[in-house]
Amino acid sequence: MKDRIAIKSAPCNGQEMIDLMKLLWPINRSISGDGLRETLKILFSFFEDSKIHEVSSGTKALDWTVPEEWKVKSAILVGPENEIIADFKKNNLHLVGYSIPVDLVLELEDLLEHIYTLPDQPEAIPYVTSYYKKTWGFCISENAKNKLKQGKYKVKIDSSHFDGSISWGELFFPGKVEKEVFFSTYCCHPSMANNELSGPCLATAIANWIRQKDNYYSYRFVFAPETIGSAAILESKKDYLKENVIAAFNLTCVGDERDWSFLPSRQENTYTDKVAKYCMDAFLGSYTEYSWLDRGSDERMYCAPMIDLPMVNVMRTKHGVYPEYHTSLDTIGNVVTAKGLQDSFDFYKKMIDVIENDCVPTSLVIGEPQLGKRSLYPNISKKGSNSNTRNMVNLISYSDGKKSLLEIAKKCNIPFFTILKELNTLVNNDLIEKRDLNL
Amino acid sequence: MKDRIAIKSAPCNGQEMIDLMKLLWPINRSISGDGLRETLKILFSFFEDSKIHEVSSGTKALDWTVPEEWKVKSAILVGPENEIIADFKKNNLHLVGYSIPVDLVLELEDLLEHIYTLPDQPEAIPYVTSYYKKTWGFCISENAKNKLKQGKYKVKIDSSHFDGSISWGELFFPGKVEKEVFFSTYCCHPSMANNELSGPCLATAIANWIRQKDNYYSYRFVFAPETIGSAAILESKKDYLKENVIAAFNLTCVGDERDWSFLPSRQENTYTDKVAKYCMDAFLGSYTEYSWLDRGSDERMYCAPMIDLPMVNVMRTKHGVYPEYHTSLDTIGNVVTAKGLQDSFDFYKKMIDVIENDCVPTSLVIGEPQLGKRSLYPNISKKGSNSNTRNMVNLISYSDGKKSLLEIAKKCNIPFFTILKELNTLVNNDLIEKRDLNL
Amino acid sequence: MKDRIAIKSAPCNGQEMIDLMKLLWPINRSISGDGLRETLKILFSFFEDSKIHEVSSGTKALDWTVPEEWKVKSAILVGPENEIIADFKKNNLHLVGYSIPVDLVLELEDLLEHIYTLPDQPEAIPYVTSYYKKTWGFCISENAKNKLKQGKYKVKIDSSHFDGSISWGELFFPGKVEKEVFFSTYCCHPSMANNELSGPCLATAIANWIRQKDNYYSYRFVFAPETIGSAAILESKKDYLKENVIAAFNLTCVGDERDWSFLPSRQENTYTDKVAKYCMDAFLGSYTEYSWLDRGSDERMYCAPMIDLPMVNVMRTKHGVYPEYHTSLDTIGNVVTAKGLQDSFDFYKKMIDVIENDCVPTSLVIGEPQLGKRSLYPNISKKGSNSNTRNMVNLISYSDGKKSLLEIAKKCNIPFFTILKELNTLVNNDLIEKRDLNL
Repeated sequence: MKDRIAIKSAPCNGQEMIDLMKLLWPINRSISGDGLRETLKILFSFFEDSKIHEVSSGTKALDWTVPEEWKVKSAILVGPENEIIADFKKNNLHLVGYSIPVDLVLELEDLLEHIYTLPDQPEAIPYVTSYYKKTWGFCISENAKNKLKQGKYKVKIDSSHFDGSISWGELFFPGKVEKEVFFSTYCCHPSMANNELSGPCLATAIANWIRQKDNYYSYRFVFAPETIGSAAILESKKDYLKENVIAAFNLTCVGDERDWSFLPSRQENTYTDKVAKYCMDAFLGSYTEYSWLDRGSDERMYCAPMIDLPMVNVMRTKHGVYPEYHTSLDTIGNVVTAKGLQDSFDFYKKMIDVIENDCVPTSLVIGEPQLGKRSLYPNISKKGSNSNTRNMVNLISYSDGKKSLLEIAKKCNIPFFTILKELNTLVNNDLIEKRDLNL
Repeated sequence: MKDRIAIKSAPCNGQEMIDLMKLLWPINRSISGDGLRETLKILFSFFEDSKIHEVSSGTKALDWTVPEEWKVKSAILVGPENEIIADFKKNNLHLVGYSIPVDLVLELEDLLEHIYTLPDQPEAIPYVTSYYKKTWGFCISENAKNKLKQGKYKVKIDSSHFDGSISWGELFFPGKVEKEVFFSTYCCHPSMANNELSGPCLATAIANWIRQKDNYYSYRFVFAPETIGSAAILESKKDYLKENVIAAFNLTCVGDERDWSFLPSRQENTYTDKVAKYCMDAFLGSYTEYSWLDRGSDERMYCAPMIDLPMVNVMRTKHGVYPEYHTSLDTIGNVVTAKGLQDSFDFYKKMIDVIENDCVPTSLVIGEPQLGKRSLYPNISKKGSNSNTRNMVNLISYSDGKKSLLEIAKKCNIPFFTILKELNTLVNNDLIEKRDLNL
Repeated sequence: MKDRIAIKSAPCNGQEMIDLMKLLWPINRSISGDGLRETLKILFSFFEDSKIHEVSSGTKALDWTVPEEWKVKSAILVGPENEIIADFKKNNLHLVGYSIPVDLVLELEDLLEHIYTLPDQPEAIPYVTSYYKKTWGFCISENAKNKLKQGKYKVKIDSSHFDGSISWGELFFPGKVEKEVFFSTYCCHPSMANNELSGPCLATAIANWIRQKDNYYSYRFVFAPETIGSAAILESKKDYLKENVIAAFNLTCVGDERDWSFLPSRQENTYTDKVAKYCMDAFLGSYTEYSWLDRGSDERMYCAPMIDLPMVNVMRTKHGVYPEYHTSLDTIGNVVTAKGLQDSFDFYKKMIDVIENDCVPTSLVIGEPQLGKRSLYPNISKKGSNSNTRNMVNLISYSDGKKSLLEIAKKCNIPFFTILKELNTLVNNDLIEKRDLNL
């Protein structure tokens, strides 16, 4: 706990996100339990207002039921010569998530039914869970498995399952309007970096940035165990969110430098899809565009039929695509870097800036206005004299009250933040007013 | 008539369709008359319930008027040396359809005005009719014509026109619902195989298959003289058909092995168009896609403005495209084969299976359901463990009550009959219900 | 004035447009004043009914205000050795439009602040105006400027600004219906040929052609100073025009032979856009397609948000694109030719013919009609016998009361004037009626 108290404020850049990630790294997280609670407590220590919700075991959450809470004191697998094969204390990936308590001596043959490895990645410990079926198991490297000899193995898992609760946390920053931008991320994975400490660390940095500025929209960040957490959140807030969320992002796999990835919402053409695609096209060199069929995170819940929040995933390398995914090789340095996190942070800030500044520019005059009398246009007309004002007159021409600034930017092929400056000039001259998007 | 009584039941495969075609071959069919009636009688001998309608000469049928009935006892053209040039008894194509009675002796020059040949296909006897203008003529090969010498020719056509009727037949198999799938085919052509004995023979086989199974939709098959028959059918049933037909096919040129052809409905995007295009894309190697501008059969009536039944043509080689079309060369063996008919039969059965099983899958739960507790999903979650359930979860994800199963199959790139199996599993688990298509 | 009285009637071809252009050439036009009035008077001398509107200085016109009227008696720039550098009498481009009166002796250095040249086109005198800011200046060639020596320069501009008016002219030819086709052109440019005497000369020729024939639609032609004129017209007639204009063209740069150019309306898909694009595709070899972002003439007003007349520009080489644009090099012969004007005239007549003849063909019978009994179809049916009637039956098939003749022509790939002939035959046979377009 020494290192942990060293961090006093929310991360503001890539290196500080790495520092936070290191602090959170050793905690044993699962979809319930003290590891999850401790993680939320550290993340929320940076904010005055935050809320941690406990949802009791047995509670119905959409089609799901909140499982028993799981607690592990220790878990160890000892070989015939008393050598330690796997110790939960050394790496919390060694234990299959939600393993039941066991105290057994076994022959190798019987043990192997409870051993998980990755034959194609012989050095990696896989990440395995069994939340809803009572079983137990150890995860080790294929190399380690290959060294196991005949003999008696001792298995001792000191875990317990009991009526408790799952936990999820919430940060909310009210803006000028109730309509909100929604971020979800999950905190149920043990020690892995890109999937999934990068998500909560970036969410914390974004929330901290949002907190310090005036916002038009409200912003909500939820930190929850994957799947069951989003089901619980939707069970309690579905109607409110459907009414108020204008854009939504699932934050996962946002810490590496290898790629950028876009995964659309189920409906494919929501406002969030448009903003994200525009920003990726405008601000990134290239990126991989996935389809809804490639999904695999909480968007499964948030975009489900009859819910359909406008949620997209803007990721670096997608889950399931990079080889270290869901293994002990998904580490800081090996996969996640300060630069990767920083670039993700910068890109999300740009998307938020677009959302905050997008509007429906609406002309206040009929016909093309006389810009010259407002000193917005050269008074002497000669060949080529109007070339510097093309962006402005094009913006005016499309300010018909039907198109968003983002759509006009695309139509005119003018970068968003360039056309925004023109818009502000015209608003200051009472030529155009900004109307709310119809979202 | 010996051969004819030999067939006791409807054809079930390509060879049996060939046998039926041979039985029907020699009958002199036209748009009215006993040949048409005999053909219908044979076809309907395989079914308990069928209906033959007679529509009297002079009856108005949309913009058309039912013509007089035509009867031919004999027709012969004899040359100067008493040689027989053309005898209706030998080939009913020799006589121009609806020829008036004639008993004349003519010079060659005068005769030639009544002789039809195909200079580009010198061995073929062309198929010529003149239903609505009183004239007469003989059709012979260009080779035969070239051998005609100067001299006196005797023409004797023992035909009559009289107030009678045209005939059309109807098979109807009620399903669970009144909405129906409609098949039209025509029986007005004399001895030609692909255009047009292949149509009624395949229609009979399909009807026989439909009869023997439980169907969701009702099925109607009409066998009629081309053009005037469909006009008469629409005159009496237009409003009912517009209300109830959800898919419609015109069966013509379905017996050769040379090609597959698609001719869309006038509206191009009806439900039948979608089913047919999907099946052709999914189940055929390649095919020729025609436009509505290439039409030429009863779809001209059924798809006309203000009627607009959703009718397409799925053909083998299209009428007008293959060289033997409308000549004496359009024969069994030369054009039509048992395999050609069988493959057409198989393909139509697939289209019907798609129509029968298509529906609007609608999720009964909110959010992604918990498949694990229903044993539909691996309870132990490890890297790659969900790859076998992708089809199922993709289907669930799109079961929003707005998309048909066919649309979902296309969206997910899953073969229709594969996704259908997944759907049935989910229906059995009360996760999805099948709703009716909105057609 | 001798030459001027020589022209007694409106131009009917390219050469007569050139003659008219020569007559108008020397007149000093601006956005107000006697030059503009004299131009309108000459153009309207060919028509019985015409109207010249005067709009007083200070009048509000949309966001604009009508400026003072401008009158020039003389303007001369004399060099140190008494040589004449620029004389308004020799070329009215020498004087910056709306220059204030000046009587000064200046050093070269001070003079140069009021001298306009085109360094890239050293032989050309540029066209410069300053309507809304009080200043003065001379336009000379870069070559002439380079010869100026140190010394005293005499500037004498005998001009005046006073409360007067701007003028615009209007020709209106009522048709069978009140709905109208609208042409705008501008008459405010001094001696330049393509931009902008070609516009009013072609407008006069088109108006003269329209006058002599029976028209279904009404036709309006406005001749006005650019920008302020269209603002004044819209100020007084906006609501009427929005209600009644079904197609609109801005006539500018229509006299050269170098290219054809299309500039769409702001909404891009109005009826005028469709007609113009169809005709350009069908009747021209090739053309340059510009976007709304490339606009630069009165369409800026007529297509502005909340006005949105369906106005396009069909030009030869677009303003701003050809090098002589807005310089003394934009002359008859150098840029504009009799053939250029004639070809433009012919093309506009074709577009008008399409508009006059377009309609919604609507079948009067249900189902495909029996063409044979109306002698529109061969009564003897043999292979290939219907090939000559494909256009007719295709037209019938699409006459569902939902598609315009132009849309059907495109769908059937039949030239408009070919399908029009088929339509007239069918109308004469009471098979189809022409309904009004829904514009």
